[in-house]
Amino acid sequence: MKTFQKRSFPVDQTRRYLEPGPIVLVSSHWQGESNIMTMGWHMMLEYDRIGCYIWDENHSFDLIRKSKQCVINLPTIDLIDTIVGIGNSSGAEIDKFAKFGLTQVASDKVAVPMIKECYANFECRLEDGSMIVRRGLFIWRVVKAHVARTPKYPTTVHYRGQGIFMVSGRHINLRRKFKPQNL
Amino acid sequence: MKTFQKRSFPVDQTRRYLEPGPIVLVSSHWQGESNIMTMGWHMMLEYDRIGCYIWDENHSFDLIRKSKQCVINLPTIDLIDTIVGIGNSSGAEIDKFAKFGLTQVASDKVAVPMIKECYANFECRLEDGSMIVRRGLFIWRVVKAHVARTPKYPTTVHYRGQGIFMVSGRHINLRRKFKPQNL
Repeated sequence: MKTFQKRSFPVDQTRRYLEPGPIVLVSSHWQGESNIMTMGWHMMLEYDRIGCYIWDENHSFDLIRKSKQCVINLPTIDLIDTIVGIGNSSGAEIDKFAKFGLTQVASDKVAVPMIKECYANFECRLEDGSMIVRRGLFIWRVVKAHVARTPKYPTTVHYRGQGIFMVSGRHINLRRKFKPQNL
Repeated sequence: MKTFQKRSFPVDQTRRYLEPGPIVLVSSHWQGESNIMTMGWHMMLEYDRIGCYIWDENHSFDLIRKSKQCVINLPTIDLIDTIVGIGNSSGAEIDKFAKFGLTQVASDKVAVPMIKECYANFECRLEDGSMIVRRGLFIWRVVKAHVARTPKYPTTVHYRGQGIFMVSGRHINLRRKFKPQNL
């Protein structure tokens, strides 16, 4: 399985990887139990804040709510079968790290394992849990980020529902058309 | 400029176009003034709910907060210069519909113009404004959706910051690997 050489990355540039809207794998840990869920419902809320929706029927929901921590891992296209497999199984029944052959790596700032085989890992602490009960909305602060040195742009997958994924394509640099303060 | 033949679309399938994380154009209207802003910070919150972040320095912020309505318009790659132009100008200084040659179409359920040249339009009413002041977070209910008949998948643009856009690529159908209840 592919692995990446990663380096520490500025948390306030998290948007460079998450704003395009990729499917992510959220890892969690609470009282000896680790889990992973597939997630497509997330957004930037400030440059180092992320909002995400977690359904309370997900096995990860309680682990994440109780620990107030998670890691948002960014998988690439080579993990597509793992992404689908994780999304179609429950941590109540299986150990997803073992089942899918993923490697746990200790995080620096949270007590949640990162997934080694992902292109990037964003360690998160709960910033605001006031919308969890009413909306399923968790607001995270990114406290540490690890991003692969290469390739420059990961080939990510983006979900459309109904089993259909869009794969990220080419890139366009339009920097010259931006006002400096908007870059 | 490209236009699309659109049809009414089920609001609870909005994710098929917004979950992949494209840049959208948000149109607004309040007391005779219309505006458009470029937005990349949005997410699905339920199948017919959308969360989005709007900075209170944006000219659109007050129009949207006061009217409690907006239209989320989905542009395709052919509008890339318009997307960048709208994001790098202010409605306080120019009429963006006129400046960028975009056509206003009356919405069915909100008093906000849709953008004719976009692939899809999602008419939204404010569902929950309790996080606007503290977080810049608006929670919308999609009350009417209009989506182009063709192409099946729009070629969308996804922002990475720093003037770099990712263009949507190929699609993969992995429906056979999903549990029926997860489709």
